[in-house]
Amino acid sequence: MERELVELKTRLQEISDLNSASAVLSWDQATYMPPGGAAARSRQMATLSQLSQEKFTDAAVGHLLDALEKQIDALPEDDAALVRATRRNYDRLVKVPPQLVAKITNHSAMAYQTWTQARPANDFAAVAPYLEKSVAYAQEVADCFPGYDHIADPLIDWSDYGMKAATVKALFADLRAQLVPLVEAVTAQESADTSCLHQFFPQDKQRAFGEKIIRQFGYDFDRGRQDLTHHPFATKFSIGDVRITTRFDEHNLGDGLFSTLHESGHAMYEQGVDPGYEGTPLDGGTSAGVHESQSRTWENLVGRSRAFWTHYYPELQATFPEQLNTVSLDTFYRAVNSVKRSLIRVDADQLTYDLHVMIRFDLELALLEGSLSIQDLPEAWHARYEADLGVHAPSDIDGVLQDVHWYGGLVGGAFQGYTLGNIMSAAFYDRALADHPTIPDEIGQGEFGTLHGWLKENIYQYGSRYTAPELIERVLGAPLTIDPYIAYLKSKFGELYAL
Amino acid sequence: MERELVELKTRLQEISDLNSASAVLSWDQATYMPPGGAAARSRQMATLSQLSQEKFTDAAVGHLLDALEKQIDALPEDDAALVRATRRNYDRLVKVPPQLVAKITNHSAMAYQTWTQARPANDFAAVAPYLEKSVAYAQEVADCFPGYDHIADPLIDWSDYGMKAATVKALFADLRAQLVPLVEAVTAQESADTSCLHQFFPQDKQRAFGEKIIRQFGYDFDRGRQDLTHHPFATKFSIGDVRITTRFDEHNLGDGLFSTLHESGHAMYEQGVDPGYEGTPLDGGTSAGVHESQSRTWENLVGRSRAFWTHYYPELQATFPEQLNTVSLDTFYRAVNSVKRSLIRVDADQLTYDLHVMIRFDLELALLEGSLSIQDLPEAWHARYEADLGVHAPSDIDGVLQDVHWYGGLVGGAFQGYTLGNIMSAAFYDRALADHPTIPDEIGQGEFGTLHGWLKENIYQYGSRYTAPELIERVLGAPLTIDPYIAYLKSKFGELYAL
Repeated sequence: MERELVELKTRLQEISDLNSASAVLSWDQATYMPPGGAAARSRQMATLSQLSQEKFTDAAVGHLLDALEKQIDALPEDDAALVRATRRNYDRLVKVPPQLVAKITNHSAMAYQTWTQARPANDFAAVAPYLEKSVAYAQEVADCFPGYDHIADPLIDWSDYGMKAATVKALFADLRAQLVPLVEAVTAQESADTSCLHQFFPQDKQRAFGEKIIRQFGYDFDRGRQDLTHHPFATKFSIGDVRITTRFDEHNLGDGLFSTLHESGHAMYEQGVDPGYEGTPLDGGTSAGVHESQSRTWENLVGRSRAFWTHYYPELQATFPEQLNTVSLDTFYRAVNSVKRSLIRVDADQLTYDLHVMIRFDLELALLEGSLSIQDLPEAWHARYEADLGVHAPSDIDGVLQDVHWYGGLVGGAFQGYTLGNIMSAAFYDRALADHPTIPDEIGQGEFGTLHGWLKENIYQYGSRYTAPELIERVLGAPLTIDPYIAYLKSKFGELYAL
Repeated sequence: MERELVELKTRLQEISDLNSASAVLSWDQATYMPPGGAAARSRQMATLSQLSQEKFTDAAVGHLLDALEKQIDALPEDDAALVRATRRNYDRLVKVPPQLVAKITNHSAMAYQTWTQARPANDFAAVAPYLEKSVAYAQEVADCFPGYDHIADPLIDWSDYGMKAATVKALFADLRAQLVPLVEAVTAQESADTSCLHQFFPQDKQRAFGEKIIRQFGYDFDRGRQDLTHHPFATKFSIGDVRITTRFDEHNLGDGLFSTLHESGHAMYEQGVDPGYEGTPLDGGTSAGVHESQSRTWENLVGRSRAFWTHYYPELQATFPEQLNTVSLDTFYRAVNSVKRSLIRVDADQLTYDLHVMIRFDLELALLEGSLSIQDLPEAWHARYEADLGVHAPSDIDGVLQDVHWYGGLVGGAFQGYTLGNIMSAAFYDRALADHPTIPDEIGQGEFGTLHGWLKENIYQYGSRYTAPELIERVLGAPLTIDPYIAYLKSKFGELYAL
């Protein structure tokens, strides 16, 4: 069995190298590549991705997995986890017939292309037939994984393995029930003055300030770097090279700063994985939700907390004296935590964000179940925004045409991770505070070692060694609930808005 | 035959994509990669390179070549050239037995490692046994290509295909005979005052000035970019993405500026290749010598000419008024063309540079022929430096231990391209002036379109469609001679030093 394990790991390492090379090409495409490089770059990435797939779906990999699974109980636990994670990824690739994959690939390109033109033209009718197909293909893909409880389960599994539609629906229903009245109460108050954030803040100073903070968080610049791009992201080439990107708006201080903090959370997770997992499917965050919980921890729980700004605001004022010397800490703290009922998910604040996400999750479940037709989707969208956020988009541009996710090929499984991440972030943080009650005080001193150490020990190091449900059970000793998240939101926004 | 050609091109495209991915990873390694990424990056590049080799040496490629060669006369000329170039590359990979390749790979790593410690310690004895092996392996590799006239020919072929040792020796003997007395005459005069180049020149201004010039040369920044690195180089990811790197010394204006001009010459060659050759062995400069001829054209023939500085020096003064307003054009022009007998090849000036190169070429020929022993090499080095340049290194550090080339695995074929490039640059330029006598006047106006257009039409577009000897014959209508190069050097340095 040792031989099979060594051979499997050798094959996985080669596949991982190809995927890492692809990631470097993709990073370069988003940061430094000149426009003339675009056409060849797409082809080069397609070549790498096809080779990686060919190597992963090689029948020999299946045989190795079969052999190892027969004696999985005799394997060391890390190796058993490796076999299970590899099997999941393998099945995802081999259970969907190549002809269906080819059809979806073609369809995705056309659906996306159509959407890029239909959105500015407010032309939902143009994308409707593609969306219809996207739902049908998603159903067809789900049916390649028989035995599910809900047709969305196999799609949710691709990003949040083991988080069933039923579980997520129940969590989200609870959250919505609490969140809608909370948002109502907060937005009934006078809104925060955010003008202090919209002065002129030179990019180089913004960048230096943000990088200083994330270095103190524990993001290791010897094993990473930050570059500029249009759409911020974190990416990993190896455990020794986990990079982030950001963008700066010189007239909006929050945009670049919180994006830097957010991406540093994703990156610290990846930097913290056990180096022994490098080159295997265990090397990397275990699910979209857990990943998001780490970015939101540093962006929101830490980075938008009063303790944090009590320490950093004087430094920020010293960095931008002309802009901020007459702005009080309280005004600034309220500004970075302002709440608005709005139409656009990606611009939403901490409190309303989840409402945007849950609308999409519920609608895509309805589409997949067949209880909502594509034709009725735009109105269903408006109705939910009206009900949950009290706003109505003037057109579909900022309505159902807003996000790319549904127009990239499949419908389902792409949204739940954002809100699961928020729920988990508070639950994990609660646990960290129970273990180390000094954490908030330390944050107030610009010290993050205890929190970072706790996250590394309890979450980061395991990579994908545990699935999200397993990790939650391990860390919390119980299944996930929304209670810590709701308590956190009520306490924070209750204090801010004197509820 | 159409089918075989299509299949060959499909395979070559995939191999080219893998090689391009490798080039991106290598560029990133030299520009932006954080230190923590080093170990994984070496492995990732090794994986890509091994896959590319496996795919290229696939027996199916050999069968396709066999089939196509049988009817090569019936192929369109471009396709026939493609088959010939592919055959050359294929034979290089398949004719050397894998066991020998493996032995050389191991040996290379150890030889290089030993050299990095032996050079600072001035310990030639430590590297001597490795160098002995490097010569033996080089001879063994050469013997995999029987039928050569000189044992160095197969090694020279790898970088300068078709340039036989005998041809190069004859050219170099002529050149040395002319160059030694010229250098003697010039260095007998008072040396130029170079102090104007060694003031403080802020990096960002140096960079902007250099990039403005190469943009005017015709380097297309929509299909390339310049980044910072330790050792400047040009690299190609596709015809639409050809990048250069440079470094700046804020106390040496010439270092970064001429490196930028030099690399832009390499890059314009690659940007100018017929896009129809993309993804095939024809996509790329045809030999080390021809490539160097293009970098030296823009660095030296253009960039160190009086006409060029007559136009650009006022702009340079306006960029660095404090440093240069009291320095005359003549003083500056003499400074960038100063001549010194020196010990270090990479720091040598335009006039003495070839003497350094030819010493190495002659010594490696003697090693390969067996007429010089490793034991006698350090003294042979000193003797030639004494004879050609009138200098004697105080130790082997700046003597035989100076360059990495001989300590990277094989001896032979790595140096001749530098001087062949200089010889070719003058010969091609002479031809361009015969076709367009206005070129020097245009350079004096900061106009380079005629020269760039001529190079593109006569050299760049063909990529590796013609071998270097074929290209020379096409452009010059005659074999290469040193006459234009010597005439150029005598005229330029004769004027500068009033010989």
